[in-house]
Amino acid sequence: MKNFTKENLALAHKRIAPYIHNTPVLSNATINSSIGANLFFKCENFQKVGAFKARGAMNALLKLKHQHPEILHVATHSSGNHAQALSWGAKQLGLKATIVMPSNSPQVKKDAVKGYGADIIECEPTLEARELELKKVVVKGACFVPPYDHIDIIEGQSTAALELVALQPTLDCVICPVGGGGLLAGTALASYFNEGPAVFGAEPEMADDAYQSFTSGKWVPSKNPITIADGLKTSLGKINFDVIKEHVQEIFLVTEEEIKSALKLVLERMKIVIEPSSAVALAAVIKNKERFKGREVGIILSGGNIDLSLLDKY
Amino acid sequence: MKNFTKENLALAHKRIAPYIHNTPVLSNATINSSIGANLFFKCENFQKVGAFKARGAMNALLKLKHQHPEILHVATHSSGNHAQALSWGAKQLGLKATIVMPSNSPQVKKDAVKGYGADIIECEPTLEARELELKKVVVKGACFVPPYDHIDIIEGQSTAALELVALQPTLDCVICPVGGGGLLAGTALASYFNEGPAVFGAEPEMADDAYQSFTSGKWVPSKNPITIADGLKTSLGKINFDVIKEHVQEIFLVTEEEIKSALKLVLERMKIVIEPSSAVALAAVIKNKERFKGREVGIILSGGNIDLSLLDKY
Repeated sequence: MKNFTKENLALAHKRIAPYIHNTPVLSNATINSSIGANLFFKCENFQKVGAFKARGAMNALLKLKHQHPEILHVATHSSGNHAQALSWGAKQLGLKATIVMPSNSPQVKKDAVKGYGADIIECEPTLEARELELKKVVVKGACFVPPYDHIDIIEGQSTAALELVALQPTLDCVICPVGGGGLLAGTALASYFNEGPAVFGAEPEMADDAYQSFTSGKWVPSKNPITIADGLKTSLGKINFDVIKEHVQEIFLVTEEEIKSALKLVLERMKIVIEPSSAVALAAVIKNKERFKGREVGIILSGGNIDLSLLDKY
Repeated sequence: MKNFTKENLALAHKRIAPYIHNTPVLSNATINSSIGANLFFKCENFQKVGAFKARGAMNALLKLKHQHPEILHVATHSSGNHAQALSWGAKQLGLKATIVMPSNSPQVKKDAVKGYGADIIECEPTLEARELELKKVVVKGACFVPPYDHIDIIEGQSTAALELVALQPTLDCVICPVGGGGLLAGTALASYFNEGPAVFGAEPEMADDAYQSFTSGKWVPSKNPITIADGLKTSLGKINFDVIKEHVQEIFLVTEEEIKSALKLVLERMKIVIEPSSAVALAAVIKNKERFKGREVGIILSGGNIDLSLLDKY
């Protein structure tokens, strides 16, 4: 934990600010009155590449470029949003990018990566296959930029909560989804260093490794996660876990039906497109509404990259 | 035409402003660069009831309440958004509302009308059936608030363009969809009285009565319109036609495929939910992009009330 400081989080925000959007914070009267709380949605679906991942990737790339100007090629493995984020960031900074993507990644995410000019290497949808393929690229000279379990990434992801709390200083709590844990760890640190609101995580029951790790106190890997919240299938990062253990109040679990229902509510009532992972935090607030009654609740909508063909299933 | 004045449009805006949203105007770098123009989207999908129709309905209701405070019951026939708008407006002002809706109206729109506490009378999806059922309600004492072909409605709809032009005074043109014509007529008047940008209309090929009327100079009714842009199936209003003939530059036609493709572009790139009618104006700009190259183009996104189950067909 000693590497994270209030100053470094603020520096990360200053570093990436010229490249990212300070995304809007929206409210919805109908949703508020149905829950009995005041919800403030931080809309990272409107972020560059359609997800908060642009923040972490850009912070990592800018630090890398500063510390190792000789590196011209970066690579990662990602099921989606980090892939787009790294491709986009590399393009902004004039770097070559190679992305290892599981073959079952949503087509819209593969298309976006290609659109940013990155090379894609497809692999089997297992962590082992992803790491093996990545190794082959790295031995050819590319620098690995990890998707979530790294201090630079966590610093970058913290900036969404920094912006939210700056705009809404009276929030009682902030809740965000947890997959690899970069967003949740960053959010927890942003709040901790600024004496901000309580921080909660939200996770699908069908991919509950962060919940298992958090409640047992011991890191538990993700095993065969099956959820429509495709961004949350990854195992919790270990650096992230250390932060979350210390600075997160609680992790809520929600069912697939609760995720779908929250997603539908956002699309129909707020008229904004979010991906299923983003609906997980709202689903947790709806499920536990007696806990949030009368409160000011920040919700980080993590992204908006959804295969539209999925929507008939909601 | 003599009934429309610059002052009355401004008064309508002042009258309804406490009830409606001054909706945001969004831009998208990817869409702009693919078209080679600067597009400014006036987001009436974020309006009360999810459509610009809240403006006209509220203006009509407020004028009615002022001129006839004895009237406590209003009614209309509408395939959707005007139905919601009148129900919502009536609720705000403490009036009873009865809505005649064709049986094939999207379920989401029927649910919304019920949610505002209005009574629904379902009828066959023909203008004749709608008018017959409405007559039965009116003879019982309800005051008919028409969906589009009325000066109060047109004044109200003009306020979207008033806000857009106030925010973006350098626009070269504004384009909006045309169904009954209230939005297009209001937009044309707002621009005319304020020496604003050129105004264009956009219409589905499969529901081209406004185009036929505009090009022939003679009012042509809508005949068996078959389009996914369900809000644009109605015949052009006659008052609206008089305004449009005089103050609109041109009406563009687009195919169903072009509408679907523009809708998908907005959902995927802008991460906002719009209804098919709203995509018609963007589709027209994409189809005629050489006409708009290098220009500042205002696009009025008319609403966001879409049956999500439709989205798998795009």
